[in-house]
Amino acid sequence: MKLTIKAVPLTRDAFAQFGDVIEMDGAKHFPINDGNVERYHDLASVMIDVESDGKAIISFFRANGVSSNPPQVRLVERHPKGSQAFIPMHNDPMVVVVAPAGDEVSPADLRAFVSNGKQGVNYHTGVWHVPLITSEVGQLALVVDRNGPGHNCDELFFDGEEIFVDVP
Amino acid sequence: MKLTIKAVPLTRDAFAQFGDVIEMDGAKHFPINDGNVERYHDLASVMIDVESDGKAIISFFRANGVSSNPPQVRLVERHPKGSQAFIPMHNDPMVVVVAPAGDEVSPADLRAFVSNGKQGVNYHTGVWHVPLITSEVGQLALVVDRNGPGHNCDELFFDGEEIFVDVP
Repeated sequence: MKLTIKAVPLTRDAFAQFGDVIEMDGAKHFPINDGNVERYHDLASVMIDVESDGKAIISFFRANGVSSNPPQVRLVERHPKGSQAFIPMHNDPMVVVVAPAGDEVSPADLRAFVSNGKQGVNYHTGVWHVPLITSEVGQLALVVDRNGPGHNCDELFFDGEEIFVDVP
Repeated sequence: MKLTIKAVPLTRDAFAQFGDVIEMDGAKHFPINDGNVERYHDLASVMIDVESDGKAIISFFRANGVSSNPPQVRLVERHPKGSQAFIPMHNDPMVVVVAPAGDEVSPADLRAFVSNGKQGVNYHTGVWHVPLITSEVGQLALVVDRNGPGHNCDELFFDGEEIFVDVP
C-alpha cells in the first residue's frame, strides 16, 4: 500500500496528545535574576520512570546522513520508560511523525508535523515517533531522555508499506 | 575588599567538582537509528530530588540586559533540590563563576571559567554559581532544572566586596 501523510504546522494544540512543543512563542514567562533574565518556564516536562532506577540525561544527536526526500516512514519507535525531547541547534524546519501511545499502530494512525525552525518537541512516554529526520549532515539536536536499566525502546516496522511525508 | 578572579578555559577536568561540561569534543558517542545519527551520550546527569515530588523541566532563559564588563560578582545562588543545566543557543563564549557546594562561601572560594562557545554546563545540586552572565540582549540558553514544591534557591550576597571577573 502506498500512503502519503501531509505534514501540518507544528502547534501546541495539534501536538498536545503526543507531547510538548518547546517554543517561546505563547509560553508563560517571567523575569528572574533581578530582571536581567526572562524565564520561559516549563516548556516541557521530562518524564522518567524512577522506579526502574532511571535518570534524565542530556545528549547531542548529530546527523550522519540525510533522510530521503520526501521523507519515508519505515518504522516508528517508542520509549516506554520516559519522554524524549529534541531541541534543534539550527533554525531549519524539522519534520516529526508520530502516532498515539498504545500497543498497536497502523499507518492510518500516523500524523506528520513541520516546525517553524524555532521549535523543539518532547515526545511523551510511550508515544510512537519516527527517528530523527535530518535534512543536512551535521545538524545537531539537544536531547533530554532517560538513561537506566531495563528495556526502553520498542520498534515497529511497516513492512510492505510505502509511506511518505508530504512536506509543504 | 577588591578581588579579581581570572577566568580560565572551561574543561571537564577543571570543572568536575562543580558539575558537567556539556560538549561533544571528547564525549562518548555511538551510531543509532541505522547509522543515520551519532549519539553523543550522557553529557550531563539531571539530578532531581524526587522525594520532594520534583520533576525535571525544560525552559529557555533569554537575556533582558547585558552584564557589566568586566562582569561583577554580587551574589551566588544554589539549588539544594536539583541540578541546573545551561546550554547556550548561540556560539559566543559564556562566563561561569562557581564555588563548591557547602554552607559557607568566601570570595576566595570562587572560580571563573570561560567557554569556547560550543559548551554548556550543568551545575550539580547545591553548587554555588553566579546567575547567568550575558554579553548581548536576546541571548538564549536552554535550561534543564527542577520544578516542584519546596525551597530550591538560596542566595548569598557578597556585601561590601568588589569582586570582578577578568575574562581573557
